[in-house]
Amino acid sequence: MAKQVNVGVIGCGIVGRGTIETLLKNKETILQKSGISVNLVGIADIRIDNNDELLNGVAIKTTDAMELINNPEIDIIVELIGGYTHAKTFILAAIEQGKHVVTANKALLATHGKEIFNKAIEKGVQVAFEASVGGGIPIIKVLKEDLAANNIEEIDGIINGTANYILTRMIQEGKDYKDVLADAQKLGYAEADPTFDVQGIDSAHKLTLLSSIAFGTWVEFDKVYTEGITNISTVDIDFAKELDCTIKLLAIAKKRNGSIEVRVHPTMIPNRFQLAAVNDVFNAVQVKGDVVGTTLHYGRGAGGTPTSSAVVADIVNIARDIVSGCKERVPALGFAQAIESHYPIVNIDDTVSSFYMRFNVEDNPGVLSTIAGIMSLNNVSISSAIQRGKEGQDGLPLVFLTHNATGKQIRNAVDEIDKLPFIKDKTVVIRVEGLR
Amino acid sequence: MAKQVNVGVIGCGIVGRGTIETLLKNKETILQKSGISVNLVGIADIRIDNNDELLNGVAIKTTDAMELINNPEIDIIVELIGGYTHAKTFILAAIEQGKHVVTANKALLATHGKEIFNKAIEKGVQVAFEASVGGGIPIIKVLKEDLAANNIEEIDGIINGTANYILTRMIQEGKDYKDVLADAQKLGYAEADPTFDVQGIDSAHKLTLLSSIAFGTWVEFDKVYTEGITNISTVDIDFAKELDCTIKLLAIAKKRNGSIEVRVHPTMIPNRFQLAAVNDVFNAVQVKGDVVGTTLHYGRGAGGTPTSSAVVADIVNIARDIVSGCKERVPALGFAQAIESHYPIVNIDDTVSSFYMRFNVEDNPGVLSTIAGIMSLNNVSISSAIQRGKEGQDGLPLVFLTHNATGKQIRNAVDEIDKLPFIKDKTVVIRVEGLR
Repeated sequence: MAKQVNVGVIGCGIVGRGTIETLLKNKETILQKSGISVNLVGIADIRIDNNDELLNGVAIKTTDAMELINNPEIDIIVELIGGYTHAKTFILAAIEQGKHVVTANKALLATHGKEIFNKAIEKGVQVAFEASVGGGIPIIKVLKEDLAANNIEEIDGIINGTANYILTRMIQEGKDYKDVLADAQKLGYAEADPTFDVQGIDSAHKLTLLSSIAFGTWVEFDKVYTEGITNISTVDIDFAKELDCTIKLLAIAKKRNGSIEVRVHPTMIPNRFQLAAVNDVFNAVQVKGDVVGTTLHYGRGAGGTPTSSAVVADIVNIARDIVSGCKERVPALGFAQAIESHYPIVNIDDTVSSFYMRFNVEDNPGVLSTIAGIMSLNNVSISSAIQRGKEGQDGLPLVFLTHNATGKQIRNAVDEIDKLPFIKDKTVVIRVEGLR
Repeated sequence: MAKQVNVGVIGCGIVGRGTIETLLKNKETILQKSGISVNLVGIADIRIDNNDELLNGVAIKTTDAMELINNPEIDIIVELIGGYTHAKTFILAAIEQGKHVVTANKALLATHGKEIFNKAIEKGVQVAFEASVGGGIPIIKVLKEDLAANNIEEIDGIINGTANYILTRMIQEGKDYKDVLADAQKLGYAEADPTFDVQGIDSAHKLTLLSSIAFGTWVEFDKVYTEGITNISTVDIDFAKELDCTIKLLAIAKKRNGSIEVRVHPTMIPNRFQLAAVNDVFNAVQVKGDVVGTTLHYGRGAGGTPTSSAVVADIVNIARDIVSGCKERVPALGFAQAIESHYPIVNIDDTVSSFYMRFNVEDNPGVLSTIAGIMSLNNVSISSAIQRGKEGQDGLPLVFLTHNATGKQIRNAVDEIDKLPFIKDKTVVIRVEGLR
């Protein structure tokens, strides 16, 4: 007879329902693959509907998550309610009961992960979170196991589907941010309060987890530089096109001389980059390892059904460990060391890249040379300049691309330039990666 | 003290050297991640060079692979000599000794895998082969574990770097196949005898393994339809561009109504497909699962160092299993059932797709209608036609794109058409995927 592993799911939202559906629909497939009967024995949700057809045949339906957590028959608790307070309580309680945990909760793990992972290590159970980054794309386990031979040098990810959807439509249709956001909200691609997605916070949560695994450190979420897409305008998108580039909300983690950079911001990248072709709600994570070189992992970054692929993969992994009797096979963050912050994080002022700068100037003689002079005084060298179009309300756009400079050099230059009398509107600054 | 796992490598070729280098260079990294000291204790090669600096500090250097296989200290044997006879002998001997095996040998596994995997199951050891497909790209373990929640419906892969390099240069530079091949051979991207790569045989070996894992069956290699790129001409590449398409050597596996299609052939695909942008020696595997939707896995498909990332990942995986005391955690081909051929393979005559057809005709009135008439009699309907250019030595090119048709319908039509008096050269047929 097949071995049994019992699962309880907390949360009947989008990912919860996707997970329940996949566990039920593909139970036979999972059994064929793993030789294990993965049984969904219980579901908890504060608004559980006992007449919900999806939940037919599930033995326990409860509004009390603790009923699952305290059930001795259940081996794995799946937390899919999201948020901080209750999710944390349930996860810690499940760990305390010696149960393994599967979660998609990046916000909680990014902010309270150290405590949760350390508790899990203490109790000898797993906290798996493949679904927390990149939806159904296998990336957490890929970093922890498949690329274990590598020192990871860099990660560049498009890991927020909403922001990518909005930018894609702005680029393809030439529409304003606000119009596309409103439309995305109507279509269900953006939430009523889109802050987490459009301000880069969700990407920063995910980057916290990716970079922690990549570099074997605990990255403090509040040290991740985070800048959203709300100020991206069609003018800058058009200039990007002229430069054979596109603008993406990138989550970037780099290791350099024993320090690490972790930053989320709109980034201009060349169209020849694979990441430039990742459109709509799709996600992709590009990884650079010292042995493998560059790999890219692409797929649907959101949605209940795609994400359930990752949730259930975690469940099957843990079920395999339970049945084959192995403990602590792979450490929580992929490194067999205490979960601590091992590396300093570079302040955004000290990170180096090239920059796109758009000045809004009056069309006077001497403007270009004055600005270029200030750039030069701040030791920023210009790789190219574009001036086109006519002077509008906000002035005439003058675009510079710089060679490598620090965030601080650019900030200082902009502070000075924005005080000049012929500057009609705040200078726009967008970081650039990968221009030769 | 860290737990120890001992490794012996057979074969000091390109991948062998890459593997040795990675095991030595990243020994500390692997220890930090896994908590295991993975020791390279022995190397065997028929032409071993005792003065080779790379091998400094390796205890056993031998010309006799059996010395490693019979060494009771060694836990894992890594076979990297390639080929059939000796590789098979060594792998079976290692399994017989109760040792785990890591190999990159797709040719051997595709043709003798059933025997080897069954022997490994009998002896309770693992045969891992991540490096056999897609070089450093994690795809075998992704299919076996990360996508375990899915019924895999389709795989489309660019999995031969040499063929992709040649096609890329033909497309980008407008050069003939023969010129690019000669150049690729000079640059070391193609072997002196390029048969396996350019005739699609290597891709078919890899597809045998991918499809066996995807569908939980044993795919007999000789039932994989295999057609190479040697007949691709710049004329067809130009027409592809005109159709906003590109030509790639695709390895395709599809499950349909309880049967499976496994075929390797030049394929015209729309430029909007991610796979169309996979160029040079890069590889990519696109997977369609019923839950996750489409994912894409991209990276360097060849080269000693990138491929060693996969070899060493397999070693670390097995080391983790040894140290954490788990047995048979994941079945050899990802399915917990006897390794048998469970599904019939559709004959290429019965597979359905649209087709690109280029007829070489004399520029006479009635030619188009005669050809179109024969197509119609064979129940093939035309979606578009292009006629351009001037009549050359081989006639005037007339291009048809068809709607869905079977291989047999097209073959019958071409047989008839090629007998017509105004046909000046054999009709060119290329399968098309993904046109709307």
